[in-house]
Parts: sequence; C-alpha cells; structure tokens
Amino acid sequence: MANAQINCWPLIVLGGSCAQDHEGVGGFQEWPQVESSKPYCKYAARPPCAAVIPLHVEKAVRLSTYGRPGATYLDLPATLLIQSINKENIYKVASCPPPPLIFPDQRLVQQAANLLMRARKPLLIIGKGAAYGRAENEVRNMVYLTGIPFLPMPMGKGVVPDTNERCVSSARTFALQQSDVILLLGARLNWMLHFGKPPRFQPDVKMIQVDLCPEELHNSVPSAIAIQSDISTTVDSLVTILKERKWFVEENSPWWKDLLAKSNKNRAIIQKMSMDVSVPLNYYAVFKHIQDIIPSDCIICSEGANTMDIGKTILLNNQPRHRLDAATFGTMGVGLGFAIAAALYCKKNAPTKRVICVEGDSAFGFSGMEIETMFRYKLPIIVIIINNNGIYGGLDNETFRQIQASGEPTQVIPPNSLTSETHYEKMLEMFGRTGHFCTTVQDIQRALRICLQVNDSPSMINIMINPQAERKQQKFDWLTESKL
Amino acid sequence: MANAQINCWPLIVLGGSCAQDHEGVGGFQEWPQVESSKPYCKYAARPPCAAVIPLHVEKAVRLSTYGRPGATYLDLPATLLIQSINKENIYKVASCPPPPLIFPDQRLVQQAANLLMRARKPLLIIGKGAAYGRAENEVRNMVYLTGIPFLPMPMGKGVVPDTNERCVSSARTFALQQSDVILLLGARLNWMLHFGKPPRFQPDVKMIQVDLCPEELHNSVPSAIAIQSDISTTVDSLVTILKERKWFVEENSPWWKDLLAKSNKNRAIIQKMSMDVSVPLNYYAVFKHIQDIIPSDCIICSEGANTMDIGKTILLNNQPRHRLDAATFGTMGVGLGFAIAAALYCKKNAPTKRVICVEGDSAFGFSGMEIETMFRYKLPIIVIIINNNGIYGGLDNETFRQIQASGEPTQVIPPNSLTSETHYEKMLEMFGRTGHFCTTVQDIQRALRICLQVNDSPSMINIMINPQAERKQQKFDWLTESKL
Amino acid sequence: MANAQINCWPLIVLGGSCAQDHEGVGGFQEWPQVESSKPYCKYAARPPCAAVIPLHVEKAVRLSTYGRPGATYLDLPATLLIQSINKENIYKVASCPPPPLIFPDQRLVQQAANLLMRARKPLLIIGKGAAYGRAENEVRNMVYLTGIPFLPMPMGKGVVPDTNERCVSSARTFALQQSDVILLLGARLNWMLHFGKPPRFQPDVKMIQVDLCPEELHNSVPSAIAIQSDISTTVDSLVTILKERKWFVEENSPWWKDLLAKSNKNRAIIQKMSMDVSVPLNYYAVFKHIQDIIPSDCIICSEGANTMDIGKTILLNNQPRHRLDAATFGTMGVGLGFAIAAALYCKKNAPTKRVICVEGDSAFGFSGMEIETMFRYKLPIIVIIINNNGIYGGLDNETFRQIQASGEPTQVIPPNSLTSETHYEKMLEMFGRTGHFCTTVQDIQRALRICLQVNDSPSMINIMINPQAERKQQKFDWLTESKL
Amino acid sequence: MANAQINCWPLIVLGGSCAQDHEGVGGFQEWPQVESSKPYCKYAARPPCAAVIPLHVEKAVRLSTYGRPGATYLDLPATLLIQSINKENIYKVASCPPPPLIFPDQRLVQQAANLLMRARKPLLIIGKGAAYGRAENEVRNMVYLTGIPFLPMPMGKGVVPDTNERCVSSARTFALQQSDVILLLGARLNWMLHFGKPPRFQPDVKMIQVDLCPEELHNSVPSAIAIQSDISTTVDSLVTILKERKWFVEENSPWWKDLLAKSNKNRAIIQKMSMDVSVPLNYYAVFKHIQDIIPSDCIICSEGANTMDIGKTILLNNQPRHRLDAATFGTMGVGLGFAIAAALYCKKNAPTKRVICVEGDSAFGFSGMEIETMFRYKLPIIVIIINNNGIYGGLDNETFRQIQASGEPTQVIPPNSLTSETHYEKMLEMFGRTGHFCTTVQDIQRALRICLQVNDSPSMINIMINPQAERKQQKFDWLTESKL
Repeated sequence: MANAQINCWPLIVLGGSCAQDHEGVGGFQEWPQVESSKPYCKYAARPPCAAVIPLHVEKAVRLSTYGRPGATYLDLPATLLIQSINKENIYKVASCPPPPLIFPDQRLVQQAANLLMRARKPLLIIGKGAAYGRAENEVRNMVYLTGIPFLPMPMGKGVVPDTNERCVSSARTFALQQSDVILLLGARLNWMLHFGKPPRFQPDVKMIQVDLCPEELHNSVPSAIAIQSDISTTVDSLVTILKERKWFVEENSPWWKDLLAKSNKNRAIIQKMSMDVSVPLNYYAVFKHIQDIIPSDCIICSEGANTMDIGKTILLNNQPRHRLDAATFGTMGVGLGFAIAAALYCKKNAPTKRVICVEGDSAFGFSGMEIETMFRYKLPIIVIIINNNGIYGGLDNETFRQIQASGEPTQVIPPNSLTSETHYEKMLEMFGRTGHFCTTVQDIQRALRICLQVNDSPSMINIMINPQAERKQQKFDWLTESKL
Repeated sequence: MANAQINCWPLIVLGGSCAQDHEGVGGFQEWPQVESSKPYCKYAARPPCAAVIPLHVEKAVRLSTYGRPGATYLDLPATLLIQSINKENIYKVASCPPPPLIFPDQRLVQQAANLLMRARKPLLIIGKGAAYGRAENEVRNMVYLTGIPFLPMPMGKGVVPDTNERCVSSARTFALQQSDVILLLGARLNWMLHFGKPPRFQPDVKMIQVDLCPEELHNSVPSAIAIQSDISTTVDSLVTILKERKWFVEENSPWWKDLLAKSNKNRAIIQKMSMDVSVPLNYYAVFKHIQDIIPSDCIICSEGANTMDIGKTILLNNQPRHRLDAATFGTMGVGLGFAIAAALYCKKNAPTKRVICVEGDSAFGFSGMEIETMFRYKLPIIVIIINNNGIYGGLDNETFRQIQASGEPTQVIPPNSLTSETHYEKMLEMFGRTGHFCTTVQDIQRALRICLQVNDSPSMINIMINPQAERKQQKFDWLTESKL
Repeated sequence: MANAQINCWPLIVLGGSCAQDHEGVGGFQEWPQVESSKPYCKYAARPPCAAVIPLHVEKAVRLSTYGRPGATYLDLPATLLIQSINKENIYKVASCPPPPLIFPDQRLVQQAANLLMRARKPLLIIGKGAAYGRAENEVRNMVYLTGIPFLPMPMGKGVVPDTNERCVSSARTFALQQSDVILLLGARLNWMLHFGKPPRFQPDVKMIQVDLCPEELHNSVPSAIAIQSDISTTVDSLVTILKERKWFVEENSPWWKDLLAKSNKNRAIIQKMSMDVSVPLNYYAVFKHIQDIIPSDCIICSEGANTMDIGKTILLNNQPRHRLDAATFGTMGVGLGFAIAAALYCKKNAPTKRVICVEGDSAFGFSGMEIETMFRYKLPIIVIIINNNGIYGGLDNETFRQIQASGEPTQVIPPNSLTSETHYEKMLEMFGRTGHFCTTVQDIQRALRICLQVNDSPSMINIMINPQAERKQQKFDWLTESKL
Repeated sequence: MANAQINCWPLIVLGGSCAQDHEGVGGFQEWPQVESSKPYCKYAARPPCAAVIPLHVEKAVRLSTYGRPGATYLDLPATLLIQSINKENIYKVASCPPPPLIFPDQRLVQQAANLLMRARKPLLIIGKGAAYGRAENEVRNMVYLTGIPFLPMPMGKGVVPDTNERCVSSARTFALQQSDVILLLGARLNWMLHFGKPPRFQPDVKMIQVDLCPEELHNSVPSAIAIQSDISTTVDSLVTILKERKWFVEENSPWWKDLLAKSNKNRAIIQKMSMDVSVPLNYYAVFKHIQDIIPSDCIICSEGANTMDIGKTILLNNQPRHRLDAATFGTMGVGLGFAIAAALYCKKNAPTKRVICVEGDSAFGFSGMEIETMFRYKLPIIVIIINNNGIYGGLDNETFRQIQASGEPTQVIPPNSLTSETHYEKMLEMFGRTGHFCTTVQDIQRALRICLQVNDSPSMINIMINPQAERKQQKFDWLTESKL
C-alpha cells in the first residue's frame, strides 16, 4: 500500500513587488503581480500585512501539493518585508501534513478487473500522475503479477523500469492502435495521446481511467470506467483482485506475441540505425552509445524536438521521477533550470546520483547561460547537446557558409536553421574548463567517461549530427488528428 | 450506501455575444464574454465553430457537476448560431455519467472513530456539502445510531430533520464553544464558522474534516484528521465502525445534559418572544406563527439580514436541499430567482410541494419585479416580506413621515432605512390579484391559510414588524473575530 | 471658444471588500474586487494603507474625467476604513483641475473646410462626444452659420436643438445613404452607424472625423481627414474659416431640397400615425401627445426596444446632455438609475427642471423597484411605461388569458412576452399614491398634466398600446450589415 | 514644425495558438493567448475567421502607433492559417496613415512662456516622449534659442545632443533640487524622477508638463501648467513666443553660473576617476576610454545596474532614438534583443551606423545566447561586457576561489555574486571567432579598434573591473523617497 509521503514538491514562487506607497505614482516595477500570476497558479496572494505572512505561506505550500499539484505565487512588496511586528502578533500556523489519499469505489475496481479479464488486447498506459502520486510500488506490482504490456508517458517513465520486458514502447503505435481495453493511470487523453481517438486508437477501445482530478474524467472521449482516485490506492485494490483470480497475460497469447514481434522488428530497425556510426552521426547511434555509458539511476532532463522525442525512446529510466522534460506544454528553455533543481536536490540527498541534461541545440539556446549557475554552485551536471544546426534539422555546414559568404543572410536562412557547427562546448572555457566536441561515437564515449569523473563542475559534450538526420519513419505525422 | 445519482444540477449559463465579424469595429454588445466569465466559472468557452458545440456542451455539463460543483459558461456568438453544417461533421459526444464517488482512507476513518469515542463533547456539523453530495441517508443513520448532537449549516438544514431531538441549533454558540471533537461534514471553516477559532471554539478543539475538495482541508486551522472524500462514503464507513462498537451519546451524559439545558433555556426565551404578539410584532412571533402553518415539506427560499438569520432558526427543514438562501457570499437579490427555479422544478416533479420565499424588505427590493415572472408562469410561490422599513431595521413610520415633511430627506434618512410601511402587497394588484398586509398574528394566520389555497399564481404577504425589532441578545457580535 | 469646465462628471465606484486579515480563510464576501473591476474601469485600485487614500481618490477622480471619460473603482476594505493615523502622515493632494483641451492641426482643419466646400451633399453627425465635450456653443454656431444638415446620435441630441430646421432626423436613412462628405463629431462608426459602410453609406463617402481619442480614428473605415481634438476647438476653427468664406448650404440647393422633401414625406407619415388615436394606441400617437405636453427643457431618460428607438425620434431635446438612454451597449435596466441620478442633480442645481423616464415594459422590469428610492428621496420623476406586453410586442390580452387558462404556460408563451396588461401604476399604491392607467390619448393628456403638478414624489403613467404596434416601415432591418 | 512621419514603429506580436478544434480537449500548447496578452498590450485579438485578418492587422498596426504607442498582439490559430477563402471575400483595408498630431491650448502656452520668463532657475527635462514624438527639431531649437539648461532622461538622450553645453547631466541632482520652474517634455514623474517630490525637488517647484497622454497630467504632483499635446507642436509654439520676447538664460546669470560650477566640479571628480587607470579598473576609466573611441552617431543599447546608470552619464548620444536601455520598468535581459533589432534596422537603412551593446555581466546572463542570432544574421554588433563578477559588484576572484575550494558554495556565495572572472569573450569561439579579454585601458582601446573594423559578425569585449568598483558618491540613495 502507498505510504503517505509528500507526493510532489511544493512549488512556490516568491515575488517582490514595489513599495505599496509607490503604487499609483509609477513605482519601480509597479505591476499587479498577483493578478498577472493567477492564470498560471493554483493560488496567488499578497499578504495584506506582515503578521499574516505565515497564513499565506502555509496556504501556498498546502495548495501546491494537495489535489492536483501546481505552482503557487506569493507577492511580498518591499513595504511588507521591512515591517516589524511583535512576535505575539504573528499569525500561528502548523506546517501542513502530507496531501490526502483518496480511494476508489470498489464496485468500479471490480468492474475494471472484469473488463481487463475479458480483454483480448489489454494495455496499461502510465502517466506522470502515477509518478507524482508515488504509485511505483503498486504499478510495478501490477506489471510483475499480471504481465500486462505497458507504455509509459514521457514523465511516467521509470514508474516501472523501462527495461521491464513488458514495456512496449518500441511498438507504441501498434499497441495503441490495437488495444481493446486500456488502463490509463494518471495520463490525459490530450494531444500527447492523440485525444484518445481513431486513427490512433480503436474506435471502440474501452478506457479504464484512473485520475486524481474529477474534471479530467471522460475528457475528450467517454471512458468505459472512470475512477476518481489516487493511482496507488486503486491499483493496489485492482492487483489484489487480479492476483486472486490469477489473471496473467501469457507469453504465448496472440496479443503478446504480436506486440513482441512488432517490438522486435522496430528494435531491429533502431538497432541497425544505432549501429550505423558513419559520420555525420544519426540520432540513434548517438543515443545508443550514450545510454550504454550513463549510470542506470541517473536523472535525465531533456528538451528539444527530435532530441527529446527520439531520446526518450532510447535513454532509459529505471526509477520514477527521474525524467524531467518539456512535458505537455512543450515549452523550450526549461531543461537547464530543471537540471539545476535536480542537481541541487541530489547534492543534498543523493550525492552520487548524476544529472544528465540532453538538449537540442535550439532548446539549449533558450537558457544556455545557466551554465554559469551550474559553475557557481559546483553542480556536476553533464550537458549533452545534440547539434543538428537547427530545429528539426538546420542547414549543413557547407550550405550555411555559402549563404553567409553570398551576402544577405536574412533572406535565405530558413527560420528553423541556426548557425552551423556551433562549438557550444567552448562555453566551458568561460570558466576555465574544457568542453568536448564530438563527431564520432568514439568521441562520445571518451567524452562521457571523462565527464563522469568530474564531480565539482558541469561538463559539456557537443555532438555534431547530420543536419538532415531524421527519425525512423513514422506511421503518422506528428500530432495526427482524428478529423475532429 | 450512497447511490450514484447526480449530486447536484449542472448550472450552465449560455450567452450570445455579437457576430464575430463585428468584433473590433464596435459590434452590438461586443465584449470578451468568455474572459469576463472566467473568474466566476469552473469552465468558460466559446466553441470555435458550430461542429464542436457538442464537445463544449458536454464539457460544460460535466465540469459543472464533477468535483466541487459550480457554474459554467458557454458563449455562442450570433455567427455561430446561424452556421449550417452537415450532420456527419457534428462532433459526437455521449452524455456524461453521474459524477464519481470518492472513498476515504479507512485508516483515517478508524482514527476518526477512535477520536470520537474518546471525545467528551463530540459535535457534528452538517454543511451544504452533505446536501449537495446527497449524503442524507448516511448522515441520518449516523445521528440515529449514535445520538451525536448536531448543528446544521443554513443550507445543510434538512439533511437530518431540524426536528430531530439531537439538533442543537438552539444552543449553537454553547455547542461550538464547548465541543472538544467536531466532525465537520462538507462545511468550510470560513466566516460562517468563525474561522474555526477562539473565542467561538476551544483553542484545542479537534476537527475531523471530511471534504470533497482537497484544497479545503486544513484551511484556516489544521484539522486533527482530514479526509478527502465524498461525505456519504466516509460517513457510511464511520457508522459501520461506531455501530459495531456500540458508541452512543447517552441521554444522561454530562455533555448532552448541558446541551439540553442550554437548548431548553434558549428555547424558552425564544418561546417567550414568539408568544409576545403585541403590535408592532417582533421577528420571533412572526416566524413562529408562520412555521406553525406552512407544510413541513416545503422549500424555503430566504434572504435578508435579520430575516434570514433569525428565520433559519425557527423555520424548519425536514428534507435536504429544501433551503436556498444567500449562503456563504451573502448576496442579496437571489431569493426570488431561487424561488422561481425551485417552483419550476416542483411544477414538473413535485406538484404538491410548496415554495415559500421569505424576504427582508430590503432584499426584496433587489429583484421584486420577478413577481411578474411568477405570474407569467403561474407559479404558486408564497412571497412573505418581513418588513421592518430597512436594513437591520429602519425608521419607524412616524419619524419617517416627519423627516419627509420637514424638507431635505437626503440629509437625514439613515442609509439603512427604506420608505416606511411600504405596501409591497399592492404589487399583486398589477396582475389583478390582492396581496395581504398583516400587522397582527391573526392577520398572518388568515393570510397564510388563504395563500396555501392558491395554486395558479404567486401570493404575497407583507408583514409589518417593529422597525426596532431585534434578535435575542447574542453572546458575540456578528462576524466575531479571533484577533487574526 | 469653449470654456474649460469639467466636461463630464467623474464616476467613481467605491467598494468595501472584506477585512484584509480574513483574506485566504474565507472572509465575508472575500473577492478580488480590484482585479474583477479592471475590465470595466479606467482605473481600479485598493489603497495599500489609510495614509494614501487621498492619492488614489485624486487619481480616480482625475482619470475618470481626463481623456476619454469613464468609470473608476476604489476598493476600501474594512481594515482600511478603521485604521487611524496621524493627520500629518496623510498624503496631501490638491483637487485636480478641469480636464485638458486639445487643439487640432490647423492644416487638417483647412483641408476639412476645403472638403466640405467641395461637397455636393454635406452632412454633420453629432455624437455624444460633442455633448460630453460641452461643444454646444461651437456646434450650434456651425449649424446657424453654415446651414449644414445634421443628424444627432441619440445622446448627441440637444447639442443643437432637435427643433432646428436643419435637423434631418426624419430623413436619417436617406441622409446617410446619399451624403458624399460627412463631418463626424465625437461619434463612432460602430453598429449604431452601421460601421460606416454600404448599403447604409455611399461606398466613396468622405468622412471628416473629429475625436478626442486617437485610437478611434479610422476605425472600421478610413477617414478622409482624421483629427484628434476636442470637438469644441476644432469646430471653432472650422467655423471661423467657413464663415470667412461665406459657405452656406442654401435652401434651394438640390441636396437640401431633396432632404426636405424626404423629411416632409416621412414627417407626414409619422404625423398620420400620430393622429391615429384609435385604441389600442400606436407608438406614434403616444409619443406625439407626450411631446406636446412635457417641458421643452426636461431631461429624458429612456430604455426599451421600440420605446427607445421610436421615442427618440419624437421626444425632442433642445439642450445638450438632457438625454440619457441605453446608449451604445444597449444595456436594459439603467433607466431608473439614470433618472434618479439626474433628479438628484436637478434637485440641487435646477429645481424646476423635470426628469421624464420613458420605459418599455420589459426594460422597466429590470429595475422597477427603484421607485422606492425615488419615493425615499422625494424625487419628482415622471415614469412613463409604454406597455405592449413584451419585448418588441407581446401577446394581446385575450390570447394571454386563453393560454393561462389552458394549462401549461411555459410551453406556449413566447419568450419575448410578458404578462399582459400589467398594471404597473399600482406600484404607486405601495407608497400611498395613485398611478395612472391610460388607454386613450385623453387619458395620457390628463395624467401628464396631473403628474407635472407633483413636486414631492415620483409619478407613474402606464400606457397600454397595441401589442402588435410597430414602427413605421424601415428601409433596412435592424443592424443591417454590409456583408463584412 | 514637426512633420507627420510615423512617430514610432508599430510593435505587433503574432502568436499562433493551437488548432481551434483542439480547444477543450488538451491541444498542443492550448492556452487563452489573447486574454493572457491583454494586460501587456494596447490591443489583443484573435481574428474569428481568415476573411477578417486584414481588419485586425490594420487595427493592431494603428493602435500600436496612435496615441501613446504600445505593443499589440494578434493570435492566429493553426486552423485560421490554413483556411482558404475566395479573394473577393477578404475584408478590404487601407494601410493606416501616420498618427495624428495634437496641438496645445495657446493660452496655456502663453502662460508657460510667462512662467518660464519669471523663473529664476528654469530647467528643461527631456523625456523619451520627446524622442518617440520626433520633436528633436523643435526641442533643439528651444535650447539653441533660449539657452535653457536641460536634463535628458535616459531614452530622451540625443533629442538634444549630450554634448550641448547647456546639458547639465553632470549636475543632475543639483539642477533638480534647485530649479523653481521645470518644463517637462514627455517624461513622467515616476520613480525615475523621484515622484517629483522633496528632497529631490523644491517643495514649491512649478512644473510645466507637456504630455500626449491626458491621464499622465498631474500624476504624483499637480503641475502648475499641464498641457495635453504632442511635444513638437507645443514646443514650436513656445519657442515662437520666447524668441519674440528674446528670452535667454544668460551665461552670467546666477543660475547658470551655479549650474556650471557644480557641473565642472562633478566633471572634475569624474575626470579624475576616469584617469585613474590602475588595475582593476573602475567604471569611469572604462567608460571614458570607450566613449573616446566609439563613433559619435552609434546606437547604444545598455542594461545592468551600475553599468547602465554610470554608463549613461559618460556614453554620449548626439542623435535621438539612439539609446535603448532597460528603461522605466528596469527589465534585465532586453539588451541583446534591442541590439539585434537596431542592427537589422541599420543593415537596411543606415549600413555604416554601428550598434554598441554595453552590458553588465549579470544582465548579459539573461539573454547572452542571442550572440548566435547575431552571428546567423551577420550583425556587426559590438557587445561590451562590464564585468564586476556580480550585481552591483560580486566577490573578488580570490575570495570566490577560496569559497569554491572550501566546500559548500550554496551557503556562502552572496546572492548578488556570479562566478568570478568569467571569460564571456570565449563565447565567440563557438562561432570560430575570438573575443577580447581586457583588464587595462590599453586592452580596451586595442580591442575596440579591432572590433570597429569587423563588419560581418558580432564582436565581444569582456572588461574586468574591480568587483568593489563603485559610483562616485551620491547625494541620495537609489530610489530616494520623499516619505510618501
């Protein structure tokens, strides 16, 4: 059974707005901070006086972690910060306990068990809600005891190890398209799951949806069974029933055999691409040889277009909450900040754990200067840049140089191109260190091994790949729609 | 166990904004409706084209009823309403099932049972969440089987009948101040419950809080036990335990004896005031004689200051969701609208049930013209106006007339005064009917009996009371604070 | 030249939100008032402490009247109102001077004069900006000295007296459709002016637009000449030039002859309808006989659909800022509030001036209870209800009674119908007075004469008209569009 | 007289939100873009269909430049961008003319002239409004013809050349404190001008305020004369009067002599500091030697704390709109973006003009990666970093190294410190170029001369200064308040 630890870390943003008596006359950075923060926050407030700051801090922490977690904002104007008050007038608060656990309707769990047992092609989808909800013990148990094939969502990776044999990420499209009953744990049927609709899903697929948030139930498509619950509590109940009934997806069942066949076929294609180490390198070769070397318990931060999409299929997670990427909103520029936060956490709580930050070159450009912060706090983050000269691929070096030489670059450089062959690794020389410029697999291997020895500062590996490197052919375009 | 009916009615507001191609050039009533509605709604959207109207209607209905219920808004601009599309292009939706039920952590329920059993002065507070959540069977069961003294919040009245002997509304302040363990079902510790703090509560009172909404847990004060759950499911589990353990608040327990003594003392005071039928009447006499006559299953709508506050202590509810009043926000002007909605519901579903709308004179002034709507739809609502010439009491008739005669009224009429002795009942003559003007108890009795015979139109009873009529003396001022 | 008085009255709304230390824990009526007011205000603020209240009051007054006038909001929470501070700490402010006047580019005024002089069919449109800007002397001067035909917008009526012979309201559509050069003074080319486009305007009409607000220039259609300026200053300069050049629209010019012919024809139709005093009455007969009796300097407040639209063509204004109606936004429910504000102003500043409030029955229903306020403050407002049983006309009395008798009214009463033959005038009996129910012209004349004698309280005249009464036939439907 | 060119460039932000039919079901980056942009924009809209895109583009351009200029936002969802429509259905618009000019009340101009002529200590303050309003001819004329001492606001620099002898920037505090009559042209009395109050101003100083925006008049303090007008038109009128009256601030007037004395004294101090070229360098020495070399017509972009504040006093502007800095809001991170925009403009319109971007090290860290963009577009921007290891000064190199060596840096590095001696210039090696690391004045001179030869790419000069380098002693702290 799930323990009641804090499910996620509270995220509270503190802002300091201008002195309140400068409001209305053009104070320095005068702005309605609280109002502007609201659309992005679960709670935003300005304590009206110093005495009640604790009230709002407690509320901000609590609301950040209770229910669906989210950011909160507190505005502390200068005038508030310099107020002095008597100790006995300070509003007293207790620190808030861990968030509540909610439990499912057992009749629905029973129905879910029945539906799964009747399924010919059952599939488990593990969303980041399962990771936030710390349901790894229960979900792993489910996979171990029932053998249900599963697909992790990007930030749901590691709830069950990616190396588990029932992980069918290599046959993702086939699994989604064929399944007749899907157990959806803490994942939304949004664009990342193609809205739960054909052609990516069977028109009559039956969803068993488990979500903390009632408003999420039946969104986009009606679920056959919709359970508002913590993931851990429902899965625990479900496993108890399935175990008792000895339900197991057998190795020789047609569904598993088909999945395995499809998986193996795709893996073979990827394996072949991974082994093509001709220069300029392709994505698969790069990621394969990174994966071979990085520690299996490292935290992976990632952003970029192909870098993030292909990377997540090859860079494996074996522990939950060990992948931080651009996620649902797809915001670029978050990678280095995520890596810094993770490294500061590790520095204190898990000093031997490494943080690997895998960035597309374009994504890196949004916040690459954060390297300075990493140096200042001596964070041994390994920043790997997968450099294809642009977004989804830029110009090759030769073409770029010709354009540059020819005159007016603003006319002919496509908007998704960046300067070619940028030596991002030179940035380390700003701090008296040396980065790694890699064009071959041997370069990568050597660089990674060196970086893993560094414990007192960030490292950087800039890997040039073919600007025209592509993903393996996809069955569908990105963001395939179902003719909404 | 709770059944899974719809817990509350979806509330969807439809608005029609200006033609979209008039936007930006000053269209008729051009306004950003969706944006303006958002702060007041759980969901607000404008379907971008006619084909997806069903998507947004389903979502608006669903979000209105799932989780904490609330209003939703759909904006349907003129251009959208006149679009014609092929039937096959219409977005298909299924009507959404009833909202989910969530279940408690049984360990917490166990702890709650233990805490209650150790309590010397246990108290149950029934909030409107228990009514919205249709938990009446479970909560009634609890009171019947354990004899726990209870206090209903205004819109929680009737979840357990007000006539139940364990209802301690007559000793509200005493009960709140003395209790050492409070079971709080779907009620918030906001201003209506004095923020859960001294001097209205024991400093070390232990709260067992049950709420659907996780963000509500521990708000204002930390709960000893906080359970995120539907009321019905938790109470059902709790009763099972308590019943098994044969826990009961005995008649001869000191707590019950004290409560009863305090209750009886207060009832005697009220009874005495109720029996003082001298003219001009006081509130208690008026409400007592209304209560004696109105059907025990009627729906009571109410708003006003003293009218609502005193009225709720004397006008009893024996069924849940049969009281609609100005509620937490204390908004005046909602009474007649509530009554119309209730009467339209009854007309279809419970034709013999009566709707009684008890209004302060000031409150009535906000939306009194809705009498026309009642006539148009032949709704047999009985509108009773408790007329004290103002807000918390106005000028007496003689003083008012003197002021009016003396010249400049704007200077001397206090802002809480209204025109004295207004004959609101004359409004019925607009529609060819006659209202009732009452100054004595006999007038009221006669008028009410006549009104209860009317089945095809609204009636109105305008009861003049003493402009200086007051509540019985209160231990605390309104909105007592605990020196926050 | 215009004097620099205050151009319009500052409109500041004061709100009192909950005690600041109740924020976050469910204070009484806790709500982000400032944030919610912003979309509707030019300025909204909560003074952060009592000492700076004067700063925000001054700013609210100033911003309400400077530039384009508008409402402002100040939030004064309970905690602020009870603060006490030393007198010397109070922020010192001076009361703000009248709003600034801006002057036009003389080269553009010259061009405007040239364009007008070359026009074959010049037209002047007087918007409410001319009234707000107190430009009546200058605009009247222009009409007197140049004879330019003019059309007032509803709240621009009276800037030049409606009785001026060059007012072509009776030929509005013809004038708009035919004009080749339009001088637009403080009016927007929004839906009220059909967006300035065909078929209501010549495709190549040349607009000379004068507006205080630069963002309004060229909106919807490009103006030939766009002048950001106060109306008074530009018109003053323009008249100087035109006078010098002796430009005058002669009586025998084809344009004036056509306008006069069209005007006379329409006036004859209206005259005929006005003289048809058969019962039930039509709109024209009613308004004509009201107009004959009411004082020529009265303030007219009006709202409703046909009531407002037809009324504005027959009820004349001879002074500026003497008409208050539902205006651009077309909001119903504002009429009685406007009348009270106007009557309070007159009580102090112009005791003999009368306020006449002409309401459709539906519009009256939004805020009819304000009659009580009128009585309390002894405001001698004459409320005239033009009662056609609904919106754009309701059911006739007989049909309504049949429906009511037949059973289920909710099914068959059209949504635009109200209760038929409602005797609104009975509302006066609430206050011991008698209203007037009129079905004939003689009734109206008698009632009005009585009401004009009343000086110490509101009066009411409820005029039944034919529920099917219509406007004279219109060339275009309401809100004709130009196929945007 | 001012010509009527466009006063500033329209700033329109285009955003592409998710496909409209993905709204409500979790589309990719689904977000209410328009609503979120509104607080930051003058106009924000989503065209409802492709046909009306021109309407909204024209409005966005117009509103961006008319009245007080500002940014506008247009949201173009994917579904809109792929719509195809018939050419004849496209909404037709004309491109909007340059913004209107407004003219002053001549009586006020006369009063202003009188007031200036009576002043003992007149002062002119030139705000960025004078630059945006292209009033340089008029304002220069005023200074030349009247000799009035002037202070430019940071982005008002160059409206009159900084080298003009009547520029009293070197005696800023003295001038503000002593002046009895101030002519304020397009500058706000906000924090940048100490709210117009003592101790920075005389309590009875008389302000002659000229502003385009009426709501700005009398803000913070009442102006003696407040004129809503374009700067150019008012100054033109004012100069005509003053010239005629032969008003001139004589060289031997006490006011000018005092200003000159104070100026000279301050200049001597600065000169002394500038000439102190000991290593590590101070700010003054650095800026002085930069100023000596850069072209007098270059565009200077700047941000940082001391870097911006001290830099603006030594780096001179001789042309208007040639300084872009963090301005009123003081937002860091804007410098490189401004420089790119300026360089793209110059590339097309003034190919020989140089853009110099002077950045504090901390400010550079916000958006330093934009160097890549400069390379891509071959923009010959010279980026100069004034590197003091932090914000207002960081740790010196030795201390920093000791902390780093000693263990836990998060505890002991002050929050305003950055990594010491960061070699930002190494960033150029990412692109195959070499930057300049300077510690001496000779380094700076050599580096600048080299950079000025580069025409096809950005250059970078990283100048190490003393981490404890300070401003010359100030009479007041930053943001001195007047005990509001």
